[in-house]
Amino acid sequence: MSGERLIYLPLGGAGEIGMNCYVYGYGKPGEERLIVVDMGVTFPDMDGTPGVDLILPDITWLKENRHRIEAIFITHAHEDHVGAVGHTFETLGAPIVARAFTANIARGKLAEYGVEGKAVRTASKWPETVSYGPFTVGFLPISHSIPESSGLVIDTPAGRVIHTGDFKLDPTPLVGEPWDPALWEEVAAPGVLALVCDSTNVFSRHPGRSETVVGPAVEKLIAEARQMVVATTFASNVARVKTLAEAGVRAGRSICLMGRAMRRMIEAAVETGVLSDFPSVVSPEDAASIPRENLMLLVTGSQGERRAASAQLARGKYHGIELKEGDLFLFSSKTIPGNERGVIRIMNQFSEQGVDVVDDSMGDFHVSGHANRPDLETVHKLVDPQIVLPMHGEHRHLREHARVASAAGRKGMLAVNGMMIELTGNEPRVVEYIDTGRTYLDGSVQIGAMDGIVRDRIRMALNGHVVVTVILDEDDEPLGEPWCDLMGLAETGRSHAPLVDVLEEDLAQFMGRAGGKTLSDDDKLEEGLKRVARQTCQNEIGKKPEVTVVVSRLS
Amino acid sequence: MSGERLIYLPLGGAGEIGMNCYVYGYGKPGEERLIVVDMGVTFPDMDGTPGVDLILPDITWLKENRHRIEAIFITHAHEDHVGAVGHTFETLGAPIVARAFTANIARGKLAEYGVEGKAVRTASKWPETVSYGPFTVGFLPISHSIPESSGLVIDTPAGRVIHTGDFKLDPTPLVGEPWDPALWEEVAAPGVLALVCDSTNVFSRHPGRSETVVGPAVEKLIAEARQMVVATTFASNVARVKTLAEAGVRAGRSICLMGRAMRRMIEAAVETGVLSDFPSVVSPEDAASIPRENLMLLVTGSQGERRAASAQLARGKYHGIELKEGDLFLFSSKTIPGNERGVIRIMNQFSEQGVDVVDDSMGDFHVSGHANRPDLETVHKLVDPQIVLPMHGEHRHLREHARVASAAGRKGMLAVNGMMIELTGNEPRVVEYIDTGRTYLDGSVQIGAMDGIVRDRIRMALNGHVVVTVILDEDDEPLGEPWCDLMGLAETGRSHAPLVDVLEEDLAQFMGRAGGKTLSDDDKLEEGLKRVARQTCQNEIGKKPEVTVVVSRLS
Repeated sequence: MSGERLIYLPLGGAGEIGMNCYVYGYGKPGEERLIVVDMGVTFPDMDGTPGVDLILPDITWLKENRHRIEAIFITHAHEDHVGAVGHTFETLGAPIVARAFTANIARGKLAEYGVEGKAVRTASKWPETVSYGPFTVGFLPISHSIPESSGLVIDTPAGRVIHTGDFKLDPTPLVGEPWDPALWEEVAAPGVLALVCDSTNVFSRHPGRSETVVGPAVEKLIAEARQMVVATTFASNVARVKTLAEAGVRAGRSICLMGRAMRRMIEAAVETGVLSDFPSVVSPEDAASIPRENLMLLVTGSQGERRAASAQLARGKYHGIELKEGDLFLFSSKTIPGNERGVIRIMNQFSEQGVDVVDDSMGDFHVSGHANRPDLETVHKLVDPQIVLPMHGEHRHLREHARVASAAGRKGMLAVNGMMIELTGNEPRVVEYIDTGRTYLDGSVQIGAMDGIVRDRIRMALNGHVVVTVILDEDDEPLGEPWCDLMGLAETGRSHAPLVDVLEEDLAQFMGRAGGKTLSDDDKLEEGLKRVARQTCQNEIGKKPEVTVVVSRLS
Repeated sequence: MSGERLIYLPLGGAGEIGMNCYVYGYGKPGEERLIVVDMGVTFPDMDGTPGVDLILPDITWLKENRHRIEAIFITHAHEDHVGAVGHTFETLGAPIVARAFTANIARGKLAEYGVEGKAVRTASKWPETVSYGPFTVGFLPISHSIPESSGLVIDTPAGRVIHTGDFKLDPTPLVGEPWDPALWEEVAAPGVLALVCDSTNVFSRHPGRSETVVGPAVEKLIAEARQMVVATTFASNVARVKTLAEAGVRAGRSICLMGRAMRRMIEAAVETGVLSDFPSVVSPEDAASIPRENLMLLVTGSQGERRAASAQLARGKYHGIELKEGDLFLFSSKTIPGNERGVIRIMNQFSEQGVDVVDDSMGDFHVSGHANRPDLETVHKLVDPQIVLPMHGEHRHLREHARVASAAGRKGMLAVNGMMIELTGNEPRVVEYIDTGRTYLDGSVQIGAMDGIVRDRIRMALNGHVVVTVILDEDDEPLGEPWCDLMGLAETGRSHAPLVDVLEEDLAQFMGRAGGKTLSDDDKLEEGLKRVARQTCQNEIGKKPEVTVVVSRLS
């Protein structure tokens, strides 16, 4: 192969759950032709990213090498896999390849950026393949918690790689394709160089459960409900939405979908033929006039998101519907770590309305979409790759998954975002470290995670903000005294005088003492005023605020 | 009883988990003599209370009625029950009454405010009692996750109330007093008017487990560890700390306690005789020179708190000790909802260090300190009160607990913070609504939750902050053009020019257009500049920031 090599480079998703973006390359070092697998987002939180709208992988490296990118493959339509295709399309320009359902969702995202749908190429499932540069890629059906999730069979001159995407081993997924071990065996038969594998549930020691196990408990719960029934789940879990809807219909209820994401997913599933027998639904407008004991709402917001339908209902009337004493609200979902406070908040709001809330705490109303440890072991064994590269997990998941592989005598390698791994050669090894990170979509602009912008917001939130203004005349003499504006700070402190007065007094004293050297030098003046302001606040209220000094010179 | 009545008034803890503060009163309406049960805190978070140090119950009502308060009883030494005694002592002035271990901790908190220890009266356990005004109160031993947790037997002219405090039914709690049904039966025998009862675990359907069940799994894990062992648990869970330490000693390890809270709790337990046989420990300084395979650290920070020992070790060297490949870190704890992100962060940091992290996800290494539903039913039946008043829970817990009581044919009443309930009369009923809420300890001052201070911080964190400065001369003519300082905002937006330049340009145009009416009126000028600044930011970067306008007039 004359100095050509196969590389694997995770840019997002390896060392975190979310924001998946993996790169494969084949060719001479530095000239490899590239394909990208997934282009996902992750979600901001108040702790680390206040005010941010969405978090994207930093694609600087891809941008610099855009002329080498052959295509972007999307394994499935979850936000952490497809969410960034719209934001990055203009920068990368590469065609997007996905199966029908995923392509439908991807086209919707591109449309928001005015990009035409033909930028997305719809691929058929294995054994059909598409070729881009040195890569021939097939979409291998696998069960997950969204229709048409696919592993990728990536054939290269250096051998076959299987990139699992997100998956579970579900022989009866209700919607979409079941786990088909014979198919996977067939694909593995010629020999697999590397298995790049979902690690999410590596710490779960029991075999995973099928989507079907949720049905009977849901059916019983809804059949016994006396007043209105509202259920939430992940909008993209079309099988679950169907299970819930069918249970509602069997209990004699009209079904109403609430929340844009849920309607969008069901639409896409119907449009692409993934879903052919979803019960007919009523609009939110019509739902309001249906007797509550005959109505079932399926709503977005299983994670307690403030703007989703569940939170709106928790706060009061929404689309003319208001929950009441005796109604039932079902969380057919799990709470993603970090979202607990939001979920608990709406549970308590429902409780205040007299609504009975049921969740999955007993394990009856939700199953995971990811393979548990025994399932991972099954796949390792079946695919029998030379190398196992754990992906889709935090550091602890990847490390554990690599250990699971090693324990069975396989080559497990821990590769995190930014590690470029050469898969050709005797041993997989890191050949380069690429700068990676996060880009924030903030309002309508993208900012870097390290720009200091969000850091400043966090500092203002923790410490408050003091603005000090001074005016100096043409001779660097103060015109009047400095004054202060406070935001996010206590109004009075130790001396019981208004904090703003104490500050202005101390700053005036500083100005009075300051010599010409300080008064004529913006930096020195600013530094001095800042120091005094912080010290005064520390004395008065025990906090050192952020201080902005505005020096105005008449000239 | 000539118009006298017994009242129950939760001021904190009924409708939330944390910040417990309950009031009982007896006497003529409005003149009842009062006792307070517990004076706890709750903890801030970035979502709702950025920059706040501690959250206390709003004790305005108690302050207004301080002349009626006979005493403050503390059921046990958890922060959510005793944490606010120091901050509120000066305001309320009432004596504090607790058993020895709790009193020891309470005295420590008062000492931080320069209050002498004699402000705390040490009470003996039931059958001894203390009398304050119309109340005779006994401390009834009960098992929990801290030594000497006690229910209170509150005898009043209107009958007996049992306030459970936090509890579980543990016949073998390892440290402190076991659950003693005979004792509780004896106390209940004369008849109980009201049971005010812990609701935390009402949704857990299995009977609770004893502290002893943790021992064997811990013992095995530590015996098999090859390198350093570090374990964390709640510092106040003295029994657990002992279990962990003893397992370490049996595995031939020296024990080192790290973290102020843990050392303080063990000290208090030893000083008060609660703990007589704790293994000898080495100092952190000495620990650094012990071979790692012979060392076990017991550390604070089971909730991932940034400043605790666990987080320090996760970040690197702490007290000269650094974790390495092959070390073991055990979370013998559960993650309190809302703390998941912090805990996961340190787990991944340990993973990066090569440390094996073990937690309670399989249920082996922690048991709860609260009574589960079947245990609550046991206590209801045993105490057989006329009324069950659920406390210590969010709304959903209180509601469910009241339903559990009603389902067994008892009078269960849902009373949340601020509801003054009369317990005398045919039916318990709300006789008054008291304003309650939260007070924030912020730096060295207390601020109200509704003061707008924290709201402003959150707004700055979400939206960024623009400061606009304009100077006008004696004739209300602008001196130069307005200028801007930005904090927490993107530097460039749609037009690719610096945002600050675009803002200053637009603001200058506004000033140029503004007539004398606007220029001479601070409010109008401020409003106009704010509107322009927000609109320009919206156009450029898609965000509407907080804007502070500083108008300086030379006069």
